[in-house]
Amino acid sequence: MPAKRKKAVTLLSGGIDSTTAMHIAHSEGFEIYALTIDYGQRHDAELEMARRCAERLGVKEHLLLPVGLRHIGGSALTSDIEVPKRVKSEDLKEDSEFNSKIQTPDSSTIPVTYVPARNTIFLSLALAWAEVTEAEDIFIGANVLDYSGYPDCRPEYLDAFEKMANLATKAAVENKARYKIHAPLIKMTKAEIIRKGAELGVDHSLTWSCYSPIFLNGRYSPCTLCDSCILRKKGFNEAGMIDPAEAV
Amino acid sequence: MPAKRKKAVTLLSGGIDSTTAMHIAHSEGFEIYALTIDYGQRHDAELEMARRCAERLGVKEHLLLPVGLRHIGGSALTSDIEVPKRVKSEDLKEDSEFNSKIQTPDSSTIPVTYVPARNTIFLSLALAWAEVTEAEDIFIGANVLDYSGYPDCRPEYLDAFEKMANLATKAAVENKARYKIHAPLIKMTKAEIIRKGAELGVDHSLTWSCYSPIFLNGRYSPCTLCDSCILRKKGFNEAGMIDPAEAV
Repeated sequence: MPAKRKKAVTLLSGGIDSTTAMHIAHSEGFEIYALTIDYGQRHDAELEMARRCAERLGVKEHLLLPVGLRHIGGSALTSDIEVPKRVKSEDLKEDSEFNSKIQTPDSSTIPVTYVPARNTIFLSLALAWAEVTEAEDIFIGANVLDYSGYPDCRPEYLDAFEKMANLATKAAVENKARYKIHAPLIKMTKAEIIRKGAELGVDHSLTWSCYSPIFLNGRYSPCTLCDSCILRKKGFNEAGMIDPAEAV
Repeated sequence: MPAKRKKAVTLLSGGIDSTTAMHIAHSEGFEIYALTIDYGQRHDAELEMARRCAERLGVKEHLLLPVGLRHIGGSALTSDIEVPKRVKSEDLKEDSEFNSKIQTPDSSTIPVTYVPARNTIFLSLALAWAEVTEAEDIFIGANVLDYSGYPDCRPEYLDAFEKMANLATKAAVENKARYKIHAPLIKMTKAEIIRKGAELGVDHSLTWSCYSPIFLNGRYSPCTLCDSCILRKKGFNEAGMIDPAEAV
């Protein structure tokens, strides 16, 4: 009888990072339990992309879990706070010019797209599902390099969560599980993440980045001006690749 | 101008413990933001009690937050696993006999009413709301003495959560907040909690304990046989008080 595959719960938003983290878990031999949190994002393009990414990889299970974070608010992603956008004059068409003039969004201040305690809430739900499915490994696409403004993407935070998780749960206390939080992208640049994803078969046309899409002719299009769109464009440029989502 | 009152987020289930913890926070001068999680409990008697307890104390705000834990399952409180009950022969009518013969539920094994990672999920949501409301203090009715089977009620777990919380959030990282998890009941017996509540004006007739109520004639009644009903009865007996919920 072949050895039973180890299970992993992977947090999947439908963006490049979480999709790549899920593919990395898969490439390491884990059986994938993908968890997508429907937290009242202002648009559901992301959720649809997450569904398609999970389906394409052939995950064991994909759970879409509703959590009413909109009631809590406090973020441009869950309330009526405006998502900041670059002014048009900065929207340079030439890639070389784009790379030299557009900086990575300022990492010394935490952006308004920060969702209070988001990764803590998401990892808690992943931990609960890990306990139920008997997975011990949890993957998250957290990354510090390009966007170190989010406190809950830092290694010291993830370590503290892991310690807490191993005190929180029945399975850990009974020595039936030792939970591990994997953040394989933590120190990769966006370009490295994009290249790694391409190597592992991520279909980038199925990933979503925009914080503030435009709904036109019955479908969502990225705004191209929010920080997330800009990071994506910069990443593809630096990776020397064409973004298939843009090519469509 | 009078000094601004400090705010506290208090987790409120509508049971004796969380209601007493909320009253303790109030007696310490905090302005109360009560947070009740609607996590797909098998019945909503608890939620209605939480609403009435919050209203009675005159909290600043009461937030009822839906979280789809039913989709995760893994507990008698969120799925179809049966809540264990004492057999009828143990349902002794004489209080003295009851106290001597009925033991506190076995604390060496974790009961099936354990909800995977529940306190971690609840505290995460409380942390998010604390960040938004600018509270730094979070109250939880966790208790180890009567029911030490739950791993996420132990002081070492709560300490680990507090450490993690202070790395997780924008407000903490920017030194605008230092989060503190308060578990004022942690080492109290059920009888002590009941007496303390009575001192502070808790109306115990508005609190709910039963895990498995009976729906009869248009309203819920406690089953009297689940561990939670038994602990409640034992607590009132030891406190030398009559349970007003039973007297009705």
